Amino acid sequence: MNKLLVFQTDFGLDDGAISAMEGVAYCVDQSLNIRHLTHNIPQYNIFDASYRLYQAINYWPEGTTFVSVVDPGVGSERKSVVALTENNYLVVTPDNGTLTHIDKFLGIKEVRQIEEKTNRLKNSELSYTFHGRDVYAYTGARLASNTISFEEVGPKMDLDEIVKLKLFGCQKIENGVKGQIDILDVRFGSLWTSIPYEDFKEYGFEFGDDIRVKIYHNDVLVYSNMVNYGKSFADVAINEPLIYMNSAYHMAVAINQGSFSKVYGIGVGPEWKITLTRE
Amino acid sequence: MNKLLVFQTDFGLDDGAISAMEGVAYCVDQSLNIRHLTHNIPQYNIFDASYRLYQAINYWPEGTTFVSVVDPGVGSERKSVVALTENNYLVVTPDNGTLTHIDKFLGIKEVRQIEEKTNRLKNSELSYTFHGRDVYAYTGARLASNTISFEEVGPKMDLDEIVKLKLFGCQKIENGVKGQIDILDVRFGSLWTSIPYEDFKEYGFEFGDDIRVKIYHNDVLVYSNMVNYGKSFADVAINEPLIYMNSAYHMAVAINQGSFSKVYGIGVGPEWKITLTRE
Amino acid sequence: MNKLLVFQTDFGLDDGAISAMEGVAYCVDQSLNIRHLTHNIPQYNIFDASYRLYQAINYWPEGTTFVSVVDPGVGSERKSVVALTENNYLVVTPDNGTLTHIDKFLGIKEVRQIEEKTNRLKNSELSYTFHGRDVYAYTGARLASNTISFEEVGPKMDLDEIVKLKLFGCQKIENGVKGQIDILDVRFGSLWTSIPYEDFKEYGFEFGDDIRVKIYHNDVLVYSNMVNYGKSFADVAINEPLIYMNSAYHMAVAINQGSFSKVYGIGVGPEWKITLTRE
Repeated sequence: MNKLLVFQTDFGLDDGAISAMEGVAYCVDQSLNIRHLTHNIPQYNIFDASYRLYQAINYWPEGTTFVSVVDPGVGSERKSVVALTENNYLVVTPDNGTLTHIDKFLGIKEVRQIEEKTNRLKNSELSYTFHGRDVYAYTGARLASNTISFEEVGPKMDLDEIVKLKLFGCQKIENGVKGQIDILDVRFGSLWTSIPYEDFKEYGFEFGDDIRVKIYHNDVLVYSNMVNYGKSFADVAINEPLIYMNSAYHMAVAINQGSFSKVYGIGVGPEWKITLTRE
Repeated sequence: MNKLLVFQTDFGLDDGAISAMEGVAYCVDQSLNIRHLTHNIPQYNIFDASYRLYQAINYWPEGTTFVSVVDPGVGSERKSVVALTENNYLVVTPDNGTLTHIDKFLGIKEVRQIEEKTNRLKNSELSYTFHGRDVYAYTGARLASNTISFEEVGPKMDLDEIVKLKLFGCQKIENGVKGQIDILDVRFGSLWTSIPYEDFKEYGFEFGDDIRVKIYHNDVLVYSNMVNYGKSFADVAINEPLIYMNSAYHMAVAINQGSFSKVYGIGVGPEWKITLTRE
Repeated sequence: MNKLLVFQTDFGLDDGAISAMEGVAYCVDQSLNIRHLTHNIPQYNIFDASYRLYQAINYWPEGTTFVSVVDPGVGSERKSVVALTENNYLVVTPDNGTLTHIDKFLGIKEVRQIEEKTNRLKNSELSYTFHGRDVYAYTGARLASNTISFEEVGPKMDLDEIVKLKLFGCQKIENGVKGQIDILDVRFGSLWTSIPYEDFKEYGFEFGDDIRVKIYHNDVLVYSNMVNYGKSFADVAINEPLIYMNSAYHMAVAINQGSFSKVYGIGVGPEWKITLTRE
């Protein structure tokens, strides 16, 4: 591995938790380069953890080690695992669904279960609530620094065995496509859908097309409008909506310099569906 | 020192203050490894600064230098100091109580007062409001990079002389223990008490015990319930409360996947007391 | 350049955007030292981006490369540029006004327009909304790592050509000076004015003077009081206001341990003017 170690959690940045994780990793090897993906994953939100990892991981050098800890089941029987991806990243995480997007979009070569007896911070046996520090940061640091090999993590698991969340993806419907609102571009309030650019493009939409956008909450129509498909925000006037391909190569809906999510009260998750159709 | 330099402040991350501190430190030595404990200490809250430092410091490699600036008295006669802890960390800070928890739980070997005439960023004499940049980051960087020795900071102080906050700790009461709500696990709303695990355990409580939890605000009872003592959150159902030992080895009260603090409106500080008793 | 690469954006820290930018930069050169000025610039606020850069940049070692992306015009015809400052920093940014304060207070030697065909992340041609990752982080990393020279960025621009915001500065008025409320010390609510210390001092004010402070919103007087001019917050009692020189060497107004902005409902920008006069 290349000594780059990237942390992601839902712990926030208000207390000493992340710093304790960093300290543990530097005790393993002070030459590690520790980076932070985000620590503001909404609490317990495994879907978002899976998505944010997928959003960023592919831009990193081969051989980078990621530690993702969104772990509502800490202290339960859920497993701790390390995944080796097709393009040779390692991801250290509780096995609760965090690997879903990586598995689907980037591919996983092999997963091993962490043997916690051997891969655990010394003298942390009494601590049952902070595996992020005692198991994941510690193991991630030992992997990133080549103190242990991937094989020394623990036994190989069956790839089918790992926990995966259900993804909605893209459905072909009459005159267009249907997806789910997966997640927001938080700061700007844009809606990121589960519709991959490839599926959208396959349908034949072109830049400049006006497309019917309908959004449903629990099957109730809450938004319906003709929206322009643009390359970028500047293709429409300020405060106008647009459809565009987001930085993760999925279709998205935004208001130029406004928050689509706030203006129309749109949320994310399985209750929120969207259709893009030709009229 | 080992070139690791860790900053903590109440300045937040919204402006250029922390970056100016980093820049000053890198001007001293570009090979420093600058890290951040947290910059979201509630403004002027010296107790929290002391606690967060204690929560994280022990996980870092020996020889790490910490700079903690929560400094409501900037520009007053309060002293600037550097503490050498029992386990060989340095802490650079205004002498206003930041060293309280480290002094009590980890031990301080020696404290020196910073001579600000010699230990101050060049040409910063006109600046009276940003000692975090001009004195603390600068001195921390010079110590972490071994540009100056601990002795060159300034004269040795009497250990009794340094400012310490009053800690409540743990009182034995009939059938149990009494403490204060010291601080929150901010993101998750768990209550972290001043009751050390050792004192709690000494009383004979065991995993699985149902324990009477009473919380008082200014001596008025505001919460009373039987709560299970578990190893971890997963030991109780979602939305159920539990007592557990937190990652700083003190007793805590939480709701599994909920916020105890928000649900019951519980705050922190000397006005908030808690008792854990056998019934 | 010195391998220090400092990012500033309005993207926030809640998703994977900043991490993707870091990843791109480390793919260019893993020995870069990537730092973060702030990612909490209010969305689309170019003035604040310009100010925060000015607030921090001068404290960094010569040869540091900055990447500032507050880019409401992404996808429009706005140019992408790199500025070489008088003191040998590089600033990579959309040409939309970000360079205003640096140009005025620190000086710019030369500006080059980024040729996006050669200076763009490979295979990112389909991505039209994330130039922060595809153009700016990539180009910043190549400059900071000396992979390309400043000249290889693209053609030299006329210095008069770059976009500059209008700054209010300081006006001499009867018995004193007039300025604008430029920005807040966000966490503490202090008002940072556009009045440089030099202009204020030239008028003859001395520490300890009581000065008439008037604040106007769209020319309507909303605050008028005698306020003491102190060296630092500790010069007045807790909850008392004071005038002081801020860490960016401009005049500011604060409440000791309180938020002037919140208490009096004062905002920032061209609608908010302030006068400091002798009575």
